[in-house]
Amino acid sequence: AKTYKVAVLPGDGIGPEVMAEALKVLDVIEKKFDVKFARTFANVGGAGIDLEGKALPQTTIDICKASDAILFGSVGGPKWESLPPDEQPERGALLPLRKIFGLYANLRPAIIFPALTGASSLKEEVIAGGFNILVVRELTGGIYFSQPKGIDGEGDARVGVDTMRYSVPEIERIAHVGFKAAQKRDKKLCSIDKANVLSTSVLWREVVTRVGKQYPDVQLSHMYVDNGAMQLVRWPKQFDVLLCENMFGDILSDEAAMLTGSLGMLPSASLAEGTFGMYEPSGGSAPDIAGQGIANPIAQILSTSMMLRYSFAMNDAADAIDTAVEKTLNQGYRTGDIFQNKAGEKKVNTVEIGAAIIANL
Amino acid sequence: AKTYKVAVLPGDGIGPEVMAEALKVLDVIEKKFDVKFARTFANVGGAGIDLEGKALPQTTIDICKASDAILFGSVGGPKWESLPPDEQPERGALLPLRKIFGLYANLRPAIIFPALTGASSLKEEVIAGGFNILVVRELTGGIYFSQPKGIDGEGDARVGVDTMRYSVPEIERIAHVGFKAAQKRDKKLCSIDKANVLSTSVLWREVVTRVGKQYPDVQLSHMYVDNGAMQLVRWPKQFDVLLCENMFGDILSDEAAMLTGSLGMLPSASLAEGTFGMYEPSGGSAPDIAGQGIANPIAQILSTSMMLRYSFAMNDAADAIDTAVEKTLNQGYRTGDIFQNKAGEKKVNTVEIGAAIIANL
Ligand SMILES: CC(C)[C@H](C(=O)O)[C@@H](O)C(=O)O
Ligand SMILES: CC(C)[C@H](C(=O)O)[C@@H](O)C(=O)O
Repeated sequence: AKTYKVAVLPGDGIGPEVMAEALKVLDVIEKKFDVKFARTFANVGGAGIDLEGKALPQTTIDICKASDAILFGSVGGPKWESLPPDEQPERGALLPLRKIFGLYANLRPAIIFPALTGASSLKEEVIAGGFNILVVRELTGGIYFSQPKGIDGEGDARVGVDTMRYSVPEIERIAHVGFKAAQKRDKKLCSIDKANVLSTSVLWREVVTRVGKQYPDVQLSHMYVDNGAMQLVRWPKQFDVLLCENMFGDILSDEAAMLTGSLGMLPSASLAEGTFGMYEPSGGSAPDIAGQGIANPIAQILSTSMMLRYSFAMNDAADAIDTAVEKTLNQGYRTGDIFQNKAGEKKVNTVEIGAAIIANL
Repeated sequence: AKTYKVAVLPGDGIGPEVMAEALKVLDVIEKKFDVKFARTFANVGGAGIDLEGKALPQTTIDICKASDAILFGSVGGPKWESLPPDEQPERGALLPLRKIFGLYANLRPAIIFPALTGASSLKEEVIAGGFNILVVRELTGGIYFSQPKGIDGEGDARVGVDTMRYSVPEIERIAHVGFKAAQKRDKKLCSIDKANVLSTSVLWREVVTRVGKQYPDVQLSHMYVDNGAMQLVRWPKQFDVLLCENMFGDILSDEAAMLTGSLGMLPSASLAEGTFGMYEPSGGSAPDIAGQGIANPIAQILSTSMMLRYSFAMNDAADAIDTAVEKTLNQGYRTGDIFQNKAGEKKVNTVEIGAAIIANL
């Protein structure tokens, strides 16, 4: 059997609990698809700080380097909130991981599952039939990583500076990811920018338009980010793939995720060139419900499915997981976060919904 | 009678139609409050391009300089969309106006009028009782105006650069505007930043916190912009004043405005130090309905009310206008954009709703 090496980084809060269910799903996939997932656990986030003194310890980096993919839980919590921003679990782990491993392409689906339309804060008539948006976010450039960045001067003469920079190749490669994704979906790509104000956006729009010529089957449009934030609220169904630079993607992907009403359901992938990738739930570590065994593991399980699809080219196995999750929802299984007290719903805990998904696999 | 000089810039699309109604309201205020508004008309936006070759002609700048306030309509339309970004009506008029007149404080209310809750795309239960958010946006700094900005290099070696820069005094003065506004409202200020990634935000958070000490009656909180975009959708009622740097304010104010469902209702003010200000509707020039006499003039009329309040300290007159608008809505008058075909609603055109408001004044 083929063996894939997976670095498992459960992290903080509900991370370890939901990761446990995802790993059980991997066990089943091993048996069904004649494959091995060699798993190495490593500390990250608050767990990294507490046990090894850093949100991203060197041992963790080494383990990730020796792996074919990273399965990430979630990080952060009140315990570490008073640390300087650089050292905090989220920023201190995620930004270096993205940079070290060149994870330039962030895929963030925002999907309303038909069984869960009631969870959205949008009106029934706005989301009837659900929606399915894929935010493709550039993840290693722009204002997150460009220099100069810092605070200069003393006292009240201090000035803060951040730099947003994009080169043509940086825009090209993320545009290709966006167009390829659109080709496999509804063949519509809306590129988000602020070309009426930002020079990076003028270049972005030009390069995306040029790359788009290679994908004549994909319908390309451009939208200013402020309008994008409005249109998501007004009529999310108009969108298929949203292509965004790093900061705009951060904001719009979170807005789109919240519009689904089910943060606990949404996976994400952060991909490097080649097949390496990191896979993590879109929601946070939910410290308020950690340790109670009631967290929703579906986002973690669907992140695992994305890992199989993007890093290991195991589309059949990924489809099987996605189908099992959907079936489980249709059977009425609900963790507390998605329980709406409707007829046919069964309120279950983390392990129970995991078991239901596995039974459906 | 005291005389105030007002530069009237109707602009494009529905701008001139809705401006006509706002000026009729000013006529009534003149009579009721023993005051004169000396109005000088000037071209701006597409009208400026067509008639004087520029979105912001020098004559228009001169007229504004000789005035106590600017009453702005709206600019833009398909006719000018293929111009280079710098020359387009919106960018080419608004950004220089903000810079030349030092309009650093942008106030953007996002209000659901009780009579119009149905217009929001949010569920009834999320917005029951309406909400009332004031976005206070820094308008002359940050990534909009800082240097370096531009595209360097040739061909595929080109690199786009934008710079986000904030000094301590720039943050201080907008923070004071935010806290003062909160004092007159529900005494809650949420400062939006991205202090886990941006150096400007680290400085922003520190300075806002320090300024906040001078306003012990205002409850200060801090929120990352991505979370802000989510929380607006999830539970807008949690917010009173949102304090934002330029770009974040652009995005979140538009999101908040769309959540009300009634863009045609929302005014805005852009204030300089002292009493000078520019007042304009939040919505656009709506070229699709321009010239039909059916546009909603309420945002323009409420912008006029903001002018009286902030530039001329005529709070009683401003209150009178606001009350007349609310009364008109409660009487059921609706232009097409806010008509919901409910019992008690009367569908009217621009002039008719203007007349109803004036009758209520
Ligand atoms: C924690 C933070 C640095 C990060 C980001 O801004 O990218 C997070 O918000 C995300 O979207 O993954
Ligand atoms: C037209 C554009 C430059 C402007 C901005 O981004 O500030 C507009 O979106 C606004 O919010 O007034």
